Amino acid sequence: MAERRIVGDRAGWRIRVLTKHLRHLIPGTSLEASICLAYEPPEVNSGDAAFDKSAMRALLDGHDLETRDWLFNLMAKSDLFVSRKVGDKVFASPDFNEPMDEMRDKTLERIFFLLRNGVFKDFLKDNSIENSLKQMAVWEVLGIFDHALSVKLGVHFILWGGSIVSLGTQRHHDKWLRITEELKVFGCFAMTELGHGSNVRGIETVTTYDPSTQEFIIDTPCESAQKYWIGGAAKHATHTIVFSQLLIDGKNEGVHAFICQIRDANGRWCRGIRIADCGHKTGLNGVDNGRIWFDKVRIPRENLLNAVADVTPDGQYVSSIKNPDQRFGVFMAPLSSGRVTIAMHATNQAKVGLATALRYALTRRAFSVSTYEPEMLLLDYPSHQHRLLPLLAKTYAMNFAALDLKKLHLKKNPEDSKVVHVISSGFKAMFSWHSQRTLQECREACGGQGLKTENRIGNLKAEYDVQSTFEGDNNVLMQQVSKALLGDYFAARSKGKLMKGMGLEHLNGPRPVMSKELDSNVLRDSRFQLALLQLRERGLLELLDAEVKKIISTGLSTSEALMSSYKLAENLGKAFTERIMLEIFQRAEEQATGSMKKVLGLLRTLSVLSGVDEEPVFLRYGFLSPEQSQLIHREVPAVCAELRPHTLHLVDSFGIPQPFLGLIAYDWVESNAWDNVSGGSSQSIV
Amino acid sequence: MAERRIVGDRAGWRIRVLTKHLRHLIPGTSLEASICLAYEPPEVNSGDAAFDKSAMRALLDGHDLETRDWLFNLMAKSDLFVSRKVGDKVFASPDFNEPMDEMRDKTLERIFFLLRNGVFKDFLKDNSIENSLKQMAVWEVLGIFDHALSVKLGVHFILWGGSIVSLGTQRHHDKWLRITEELKVFGCFAMTELGHGSNVRGIETVTTYDPSTQEFIIDTPCESAQKYWIGGAAKHATHTIVFSQLLIDGKNEGVHAFICQIRDANGRWCRGIRIADCGHKTGLNGVDNGRIWFDKVRIPRENLLNAVADVTPDGQYVSSIKNPDQRFGVFMAPLSSGRVTIAMHATNQAKVGLATALRYALTRRAFSVSTYEPEMLLLDYPSHQHRLLPLLAKTYAMNFAALDLKKLHLKKNPEDSKVVHVISSGFKAMFSWHSQRTLQECREACGGQGLKTENRIGNLKAEYDVQSTFEGDNNVLMQQVSKALLGDYFAARSKGKLMKGMGLEHLNGPRPVMSKELDSNVLRDSRFQLALLQLRERGLLELLDAEVKKIISTGLSTSEALMSSYKLAENLGKAFTERIMLEIFQRAEEQATGSMKKVLGLLRTLSVLSGVDEEPVFLRYGFLSPEQSQLIHREVPAVCAELRPHTLHLVDSFGIPQPFLGLIAYDWVESNAWDNVSGGSSQSIV
Repeated sequence: MAERRIVGDRAGWRIRVLTKHLRHLIPGTSLEASICLAYEPPEVNSGDAAFDKSAMRALLDGHDLETRDWLFNLMAKSDLFVSRKVGDKVFASPDFNEPMDEMRDKTLERIFFLLRNGVFKDFLKDNSIENSLKQMAVWEVLGIFDHALSVKLGVHFILWGGSIVSLGTQRHHDKWLRITEELKVFGCFAMTELGHGSNVRGIETVTTYDPSTQEFIIDTPCESAQKYWIGGAAKHATHTIVFSQLLIDGKNEGVHAFICQIRDANGRWCRGIRIADCGHKTGLNGVDNGRIWFDKVRIPRENLLNAVADVTPDGQYVSSIKNPDQRFGVFMAPLSSGRVTIAMHATNQAKVGLATALRYALTRRAFSVSTYEPEMLLLDYPSHQHRLLPLLAKTYAMNFAALDLKKLHLKKNPEDSKVVHVISSGFKAMFSWHSQRTLQECREACGGQGLKTENRIGNLKAEYDVQSTFEGDNNVLMQQVSKALLGDYFAARSKGKLMKGMGLEHLNGPRPVMSKELDSNVLRDSRFQLALLQLRERGLLELLDAEVKKIISTGLSTSEALMSSYKLAENLGKAFTERIMLEIFQRAEEQATGSMKKVLGLLRTLSVLSGVDEEPVFLRYGFLSPEQSQLIHREVPAVCAELRPHTLHLVDSFGIPQPFLGLIAYDWVESNAWDNVSGGSSQSIV
Repeated sequence: MAERRIVGDRAGWRIRVLTKHLRHLIPGTSLEASICLAYEPPEVNSGDAAFDKSAMRALLDGHDLETRDWLFNLMAKSDLFVSRKVGDKVFASPDFNEPMDEMRDKTLERIFFLLRNGVFKDFLKDNSIENSLKQMAVWEVLGIFDHALSVKLGVHFILWGGSIVSLGTQRHHDKWLRITEELKVFGCFAMTELGHGSNVRGIETVTTYDPSTQEFIIDTPCESAQKYWIGGAAKHATHTIVFSQLLIDGKNEGVHAFICQIRDANGRWCRGIRIADCGHKTGLNGVDNGRIWFDKVRIPRENLLNAVADVTPDGQYVSSIKNPDQRFGVFMAPLSSGRVTIAMHATNQAKVGLATALRYALTRRAFSVSTYEPEMLLLDYPSHQHRLLPLLAKTYAMNFAALDLKKLHLKKNPEDSKVVHVISSGFKAMFSWHSQRTLQECREACGGQGLKTENRIGNLKAEYDVQSTFEGDNNVLMQQVSKALLGDYFAARSKGKLMKGMGLEHLNGPRPVMSKELDSNVLRDSRFQLALLQLRERGLLELLDAEVKKIISTGLSTSEALMSSYKLAENLGKAFTERIMLEIFQRAEEQATGSMKKVLGLLRTLSVLSGVDEEPVFLRYGFLSPEQSQLIHREVPAVCAELRPHTLHLVDSFGIPQPFLGLIAYDWVESNAWDNVSGGSSQSIV
């Protein structure tokens, strides 16, 4: 009944429109296109921006805006990157209809194009923070074009090149860095094996030393030890870093890293190397992931990356780090850059999805609520606002958080290394999940258009899906965050000390008290929001602590207790990460003034309250009463409605140029018009 | 600290394993593969089934087991379907590395293979329930192999053929059904347009009548009226059903359906027809979705599907249904089969994902908790159980629900048509969301392997993603469910009558009272579970009713009130659907005895409690107290642990033969071994 009221009233309006048609409906005459649906750009429904979009973009990107724009522009002008022209617009994207072999070659072609244009100049030789930030900007921009391109380059520069920088010594730097930068060698990173992914300590590749020739001998002793998922290995890589157990005089010294050539100058496998393809994947087929077997491959002694451990010519193992766990930690260091990068990329993908879906929602109409009214814009439905705007708000929060982490990481203060590990683990997991969720919601919000490759959204889901498990499984990472927090908490309690760092100082004070009078002003106050998130973090930490102690008291080990308390650990990991994100958001907000500050405040409020609203933990453990939660529940759509007029400007502020959004972000009537059909027709015989 | 305890203790065990290696590590000698990881089939870790698996399978499939097995077997024996051989096993799948044009041709080849093997015999001529159920079984099995195959056939048989059956009359049946069954014509279904999807009433294609030639003239008056997403149109279809506004004497009689040829016997477009490709999609590239423009295309008067409305030779419009809304409803009827089919397919895809991921979790090990212990099986981690087993339980619930709906739908009792509409809307939305969520969780639970196309999971996500928006956007459908419920509720209240049908009778009695003592026995009692879900449904209906009335009292329309109350409407749609699912589950359970009944009880409990546990609505509106919710929260992992020993047998009971699961469901060390590398290696030059 109710439904009929909504859709039934359209009959009258349809008649008016069709009457307009009818005037032209004399058989044989042609109709004017203008009498049906006409595309109105989102700008028409949005009014002027209440804030300075370029200032907002500068706040979001944080650095290297010129480099970004230059690189976007470089790609948008090259046929290697442009996939489609509509009117005076170009759209840039790989051709996802190609078989993987061709996609990979195209990725490589693009890499050499970028090299010729000087994009990678001094990437490994200049380790200044400025240069590192510039590199990050380059990865971001390339990742907005195509994940495969950024992954293939990331493997070569960050994993291969970065390992040589951080795990190698002068002899490695001298020999490899320049030719790596010039792509005269193509490096890969052979850590994961068929049998071991997250648990790197368990890898089964074995390396021994032969003093008679001063060579290491790398061996794949069994099928489960084959190197697996090695990006670049299947087709293009010439060299690899191999991670392997190092056996010296019958003693396993643990996982070490070696340089090994895998292909010769003619692209043939080197002696003792066998390579196979990982095959077709759900996404990322522009990267040639491969598998490698080492059949007692001999490499010079100097190829051990010896920053922290070495083997003398006569075969003695020496290391400046006696503790094998610490040594292992050093060898895993190249992965932390990976997590920072993922946090960044995840944010950017969410941006592409949101900019496309929200621009579309500002031009697409469906149904109408009152007689004789035109159909309503999707974004004028409160339900559509609620689907997308909290995700937009969270993406802003992620952006500021990723930017903050990036800077912290690049400072490379040794005392921050644990902080970077913990925060990057939480961000990597939460952001990659958020990105997939956002893209899924954006895809559904665009209907079938969300699945057209030219509109990017559905495709980005497939291309970026890998993020939730590579560089550490998200669930494992979230548990690591909680274990680190619990460890600090144990330590502080047992030593009678205060908690310190990562914003945990709030645990030293009294428990925050929530106002019962949660009016709109209170709900939007960042002090209230922070207190609520601190209350949850503290409560969950106490609950986890109590649960673990209780299990241990029954005679089980700490490991077993932690294994059983996984749910509280996950909840705590999320609570910690969201509290840090809020603090970073507050700092970003402080850099703004006037209406920009106001809009940022709305985004901050929406990101926090919508998160609280959908998370049962607050009610389950009494951090909120049902009445309080209902007030928050009602505030969410109110904030959405206030953000609605700013939506277009907020996605414009992402600074992603038109060629890098989906086609439906622009005039989709034009791009779908017959005049723009290019070779799409088919007249084949059944 | 805590983390180190878990992973650090492995060092000792690794040393033992590596010592074993070492015995063989005399340079130049070869190692035995057996000393590393060996694959143990899931059966090794699972023990005997506590229930009769064939009885469970019969309960799940419900009908046509022999037809299913025959068809699975037919495909597994044909090279058209088999993609890979490993040892004595074959695996069946399309080649997703092919460009879309080749994938589409392959889909067509498979269709003709099935035709030659008599699969479609009497599909349209025999409308008995038995034959219809058999057809459903065929769609299910084909859908387990490939969504594109089932969609392309579904468009031809269910949408094209089904429309002729239900919207046409004898003259259409005589002319079209036999040749449709024999695939001498290939039909498509042109409803959606570029400008109008969910809102079919708004389509802009216009048909007029020319009495001088007794022809209809179909016209696409503007670009937004081009037919869009038409499966089969881009390449193979010869005919289509066109949905169009019918203008007679200047009056719009609303949306009607016509038969129109689009390609001639040589595959050339017919006069006035223009066709373009929809292009590459995130998934389902085996279906040739196309766009059609009609340039004043003339068709015989007899091509109007005239079961409920006709135009006389001299141009008078006549209809047995005066109410345009009711007439519109009749023309939309072919879509309801679609929703039933989606509910079925969504269940099956979740099964493929779960069977693959759970078998893998019973063979894959990672980390260990105690010194000198081997690594633990993934499924022995409580966290891994919690990730997958609630999804398994919900998939069982979906299975029984989809089976029930299928039978209700096929009975075609006119008095059930509203019930089928409401329930199929709820199931279609909830099941397609559940399926995507399940596949995503399964994909992540398999790590990178979840993204290899040969393992199916990640790929199924892309292939089935369309389900959440086609045949009705999920959010719109959920709102329709609630509007129907609210309409009934309004009507019953205003007439002082009782609620009746769809299990709503519980609203006539007193509100259920929850026991405060929620011990395990109570929590697992289906009476408690039903009462809790009824309490939520009733509470949300009352809240929605009150909110809508309150908004109307401020002067807004019912439509506007409903638009603002979307969140309660969504919650209510979910509450209604889950309550119906529980009732159906209870009835399925009653068909079992002994240990099978017991296991089904565990699944029912897990499906309900895990749903309650993650849904904040219960706490927000006080249907549960925090203490009660904590008890439920603790019960979920306990039930997971009890289900763990049954896991393998529960996925075996799905009856999906080995060739149709992902490769990692079986010996993944063997399938990845060098001996099974086929042409995967590459030695190209950089």
